[in-house]
Amino acid sequence: MNVGVLLFENFETLDVFGPVEILGRLKDFYTISFYSLEGGLISNQHGVTVSTEKLEPKNNTELFIIPGGWGIRKELDNRLLIDTVRRICLSSTYVLTVCTGSALLAQTGLLDCRKATSNKRVFEWVTGFGKNVNWIKQARWTVDDKYYTSSGVSAGMDMTFGFLSDVHGVEFARKAAFEIEYNWSEDKENDNFCNQ
Amino acid sequence: MNVGVLLFENFETLDVFGPVEILGRLKDFYTISFYSLEGGLISNQHGVTVSTEKLEPKNNTELFIIPGGWGIRKELDNRLLIDTVRRICLSSTYVLTVCTGSALLAQTGLLDCRKATSNKRVFEWVTGFGKNVNWIKQARWTVDDKYYTSSGVSAGMDMTFGFLSDVHGVEFARKAAFEIEYNWSEDKENDNFCNQ
Repeated sequence: MNVGVLLFENFETLDVFGPVEILGRLKDFYTISFYSLEGGLISNQHGVTVSTEKLEPKNNTELFIIPGGWGIRKELDNRLLIDTVRRICLSSTYVLTVCTGSALLAQTGLLDCRKATSNKRVFEWVTGFGKNVNWIKQARWTVDDKYYTSSGVSAGMDMTFGFLSDVHGVEFARKAAFEIEYNWSEDKENDNFCNQ
Repeated sequence: MNVGVLLFENFETLDVFGPVEILGRLKDFYTISFYSLEGGLISNQHGVTVSTEKLEPKNNTELFIIPGGWGIRKELDNRLLIDTVRRICLSSTYVLTVCTGSALLAQTGLLDCRKATSNKRVFEWVTGFGKNVNWIKQARWTVDDKYYTSSGVSAGMDMTFGFLSDVHGVEFARKAAFEIEYNWSEDKENDNFCNQ
């Protein structure tokens, strides 16, 4: 499955590289590519600079990952990016958002009447971008048809293992978590950071 | 504190970007730079390409991070790299290794007579590179003077929070973990992946 990861200036490091670590190890199943609206080098506030290709439907992305981070604030009224993301989402088999990435997906309208979640510390802000979305604060991650959305940063890793569980079975996902010595929080319904 | 992260071809994604996420968010304390032996773009098997500067003592690295991954196998007899890493370690205030990164540090001789750990699945292989190291299989991470070594991949995140706890206090570290919604395994003595 072709995995396309959206990058933009000041993306959140672990929102991207948590899922990339997990899927990237499974070479027989997933091939990772990084995209940005214009292509080229994309940097973030943690000093990370990554080489990307231009985001377009002909990339043939099957699993599309949308991270969050400070930089997403600037992108939430970028109509060209939102329209392009919408087209990629429509043609993808699965769409996964991490943290505030769900705000960008909400802006496409594709989360309307669907379950979704996001970072708990900026939950009210994110939900303002999707008035017709069924936002679920308690969730560590949500699944609604092909759309997966996770809570903040490291929750993206738990969601990715959840995705692997749904596609390949729970034992496959547990083995993948074991191989990177990750203590997977398997319960998607309950984010223990929700009420802290 | 200047944080220098060593990259080489086929580094492990999360070994690098777990600690980078955690330290990178603390902008008032840490500034991240990426280095490789020759500088330039460095890629790995997960499709990640990162821009690096040339690794040299004048970088003035204070906290030096050595990741692991498949690519480290090729570097374990790279004398120029080992000698350069040794010099950077000697002038750094702290040295942190993740996963099989401890094999490279062991090759410098600087772990001799010190506590260290590594990835549990290739533990016997790693320990062969440090016959005089006090390898501790049960540990999630170890601390010996300025040298921190962690178990596999995601254990690097637990170690990084442990480092923050040692330097800034445990409540500071817990707050940093909370902010990325990470369930920090605080007990460095016991890696629950050790006996599985």
